[in-house]
Amino acid sequence: MAIARVLVANRGEIAVRIVRACQALDIETVVAVSDADRHSLAARIADRAFCVGAASAAESYLNAPRMVAAAVETGCDALHPGYGFLAESPELARLCIDHGVAFVGPSSEQIRQMGNKIEARVLARRYGIPTLPGSEKVASVAEAAAVAERVGLPLMMKAAAGGGGRGMKIVERIEDLPGLFARASAEAGAAFGDSTIYLERYIANARHVEVQVLGDKFGNVIHLGERDCSLQRRHQKMVEEAPAPNLPEALRRGIRDAAVTLAARFGYENAGTVEFIVDQDAAAFYFLEMNTRIQVEHPVTEMITGIDLVQEQFRVAAGERLRFAQDDVVFRGHAIECRINAELPEADFRPSPGRITAWRPPEGPNIRLDTHCHADYLVPMFYDSMLAKLVVYGSDRAEAIARMARALRRFAVEGIHTTLPFQRFLIDRPEFRDATMRTTLVDELTAPPTRFARPPGGDARGPAEPDPPHPGSGRAQRLGERI
Amino acid sequence: MAIARVLVANRGEIAVRIVRACQALDIETVVAVSDADRHSLAARIADRAFCVGAASAAESYLNAPRMVAAAVETGCDALHPGYGFLAESPELARLCIDHGVAFVGPSSEQIRQMGNKIEARVLARRYGIPTLPGSEKVASVAEAAAVAERVGLPLMMKAAAGGGGRGMKIVERIEDLPGLFARASAEAGAAFGDSTIYLERYIANARHVEVQVLGDKFGNVIHLGERDCSLQRRHQKMVEEAPAPNLPEALRRGIRDAAVTLAARFGYENAGTVEFIVDQDAAAFYFLEMNTRIQVEHPVTEMITGIDLVQEQFRVAAGERLRFAQDDVVFRGHAIECRINAELPEADFRPSPGRITAWRPPEGPNIRLDTHCHADYLVPMFYDSMLAKLVVYGSDRAEAIARMARALRRFAVEGIHTTLPFQRFLIDRPEFRDATMRTTLVDELTAPPTRFARPPGGDARGPAEPDPPHPGSGRAQRLGERI
Repeated sequence: MAIARVLVANRGEIAVRIVRACQALDIETVVAVSDADRHSLAARIADRAFCVGAASAAESYLNAPRMVAAAVETGCDALHPGYGFLAESPELARLCIDHGVAFVGPSSEQIRQMGNKIEARVLARRYGIPTLPGSEKVASVAEAAAVAERVGLPLMMKAAAGGGGRGMKIVERIEDLPGLFARASAEAGAAFGDSTIYLERYIANARHVEVQVLGDKFGNVIHLGERDCSLQRRHQKMVEEAPAPNLPEALRRGIRDAAVTLAARFGYENAGTVEFIVDQDAAAFYFLEMNTRIQVEHPVTEMITGIDLVQEQFRVAAGERLRFAQDDVVFRGHAIECRINAELPEADFRPSPGRITAWRPPEGPNIRLDTHCHADYLVPMFYDSMLAKLVVYGSDRAEAIARMARALRRFAVEGIHTTLPFQRFLIDRPEFRDATMRTTLVDELTAPPTRFARPPGGDARGPAEPDPPHPGSGRAQRLGERI
Repeated sequence: MAIARVLVANRGEIAVRIVRACQALDIETVVAVSDADRHSLAARIADRAFCVGAASAAESYLNAPRMVAAAVETGCDALHPGYGFLAESPELARLCIDHGVAFVGPSSEQIRQMGNKIEARVLARRYGIPTLPGSEKVASVAEAAAVAERVGLPLMMKAAAGGGGRGMKIVERIEDLPGLFARASAEAGAAFGDSTIYLERYIANARHVEVQVLGDKFGNVIHLGERDCSLQRRHQKMVEEAPAPNLPEALRRGIRDAAVTLAARFGYENAGTVEFIVDQDAAAFYFLEMNTRIQVEHPVTEMITGIDLVQEQFRVAAGERLRFAQDDVVFRGHAIECRINAELPEADFRPSPGRITAWRPPEGPNIRLDTHCHADYLVPMFYDSMLAKLVVYGSDRAEAIARMARALRRFAVEGIHTTLPFQRFLIDRPEFRDATMRTTLVDELTAPPTRFARPPGGDARGPAEPDPPHPGSGRAQRLGERI
């Protein structure tokens, strides 16, 4: 089948990204917009914009029946879900198929299976892929205590329906178990409508390494290399890079092979990401979860492989065979992405929506900016806070870091607060420069009373102000979060 | 030695390009500007702009002593000449060295030797590289007739001090020799101050293929692959791509090896381009000339190799060893560049300076735009007409062509005439799609009474207007032309 017209069931930079991929493939585009996004960049560059509901995401971007109705009404023969929102909704994928609309992603059943993190762990083990010691569903504090007895502490408590860090708690002392169990269950229930919890051994000195895979409807699966996404704040990725630096070659090979094995034995089709945790002390890796969608950080993979992942998603969804065998994939150079969010780092990364009065992004060779923002754009308060993904390429990691540092310094945004100052700080950290970072680094750096923006050796602006209050994780409930 | 501050002795997009490369390397920049360019983009993004003279290029960008004085006065320890203007002036290179300013390019003597096209041919033959049958200097019509007798017709008449197509004449009939000889000598004298002429066999069914080379001060030379630049209008390149498509592998290897042999035996340092003509009927290649500077079309090479050529120029000029051995250079994918000029194609590509009222370039992954233009920019009448280089990357040639076709369609410029409509037409030609183009194709397509913009199968806008007058090649005298 050929795809002639696509409903873009998302917003922000990824809606722009999808429209551009469609244009390159001569596919017409209809962008589904909420009331707040009627005049978005995606709406303007697409062939058509179609309003699916009110600004609140629950009324629009999270409403699967309305999305599929929009696709049918506008004559679309395919739907791309982007990431976040409904991208991993088995219901959306099923409704699409039921209404004759090709879903640009894997099958509804594959999404469901991998969406249940306990089931995914079981599958991985069945395929011979290492997983962390832990549990399946724990239904009570007593069961959790038994797991702690068997596996040992510390443990990570996770939501079975989770992903994106929501509901995750580190259990360091057995006496904390009852309180953490209650809170994690409640958070999981609120976020996912499913309070099921499981436990895994917690690795303190860890890196997050994930592998991009691509499969077609004929059983062919390849990997496009791995990404390191260890710089995370409360489990939200901030900086990603490819390939993973400072990773022993045996580990790199093992991780890539494990990802392909998982996807191939699972019969996975379309683009997906297999996430692993690397225990740096033990030089071992463990399967974490699989994300059945395009990932925010896919551009770094595109830059080191030259392959347009979103275009390949459409080709696979249209029933084409993969155009690349594993040996055709040529890895070259190094790419880094920084997520630029509308947040105020000094106030615990509080969201900072509002009107952008000046927008002067860096330009030049080997700099890519994926964004929906521009001067005079009003960042709505309804959705997540990502403004742009700044991506750079270098012939090696040092060149990429130098280019990113420059690009961050030259990126000027006025009218709202952004994470640019924090990203500048982060990119300069010796742990990042030396590639000795760990997943807890950002949280350690941002824990009060550390103030990241203080220049070494004193601050010419006078004595430091007291630290702002630490308002807790009100963010965790916001819609459309991704990792 | 380290380079701390550079004088950018050029204007337009390449001045912007050089400033950005310096920024990535933490080198300070002083941009030399004429009165007309005081507020140029390069002047604004550089650390400093320094006015070197009046708008007329002879008073500013072509004044070597003034450029070197500017470098000394502003404390620059290096000078980058860009392309065109003084980029291949042995005098500029020598003055730089005499005043303790590193010249980002080869030695004055290397520039002089390769600048004399007759001497370059002799060198190439000495190194065993095929050259076209022809002559050294011909001082009279009688000598030219003797060459025609020996080599046969048709012949190409060229200026020894030439390059860029100026003074070139095709001799098809012996009776045309006296008139063409007189005109070619006069044109060469006017353009270069040297009326010396030589002759080469003329190849009708030819492609222009050139090899990017890079050498350091330690005798290391590598190539970065070849480019096809066969789409030329009156010897001015319009579309360039890398790698050269539809080229037998034995020829490709032979051409690359010949370029490295030439540069290595010559002891060439810094970035250079060895140009060849490929006789498509005989499947043979011949050395044409070597350009001892960065080339306009260098971005296509950067896109298929991931190497920043301008940065490497600075590294080599600073005395560093090449960072890449030949085997480290990884070629991937396909890149195409279209030069967008301020010209009116329908009026024989007459220059169209003036104010740009709207400037909406295409954006997106794998699209690169090298430009100094923006909305409200006044294109000065004093310099060449190039506005921008639109460069795209694809995982293969078909993907790159599709992306370029889209990008050209979406590129909107108002207020002045541009070659965008012609480039759209050219990219769609079957000869380009099938990679069966030859160097004469554009001139054949633009020869009256052909009208390029006519859609096949009739024009809804009514009967075609008569062709505009053919004002001849007044362009040939304009300053700062490059190829």
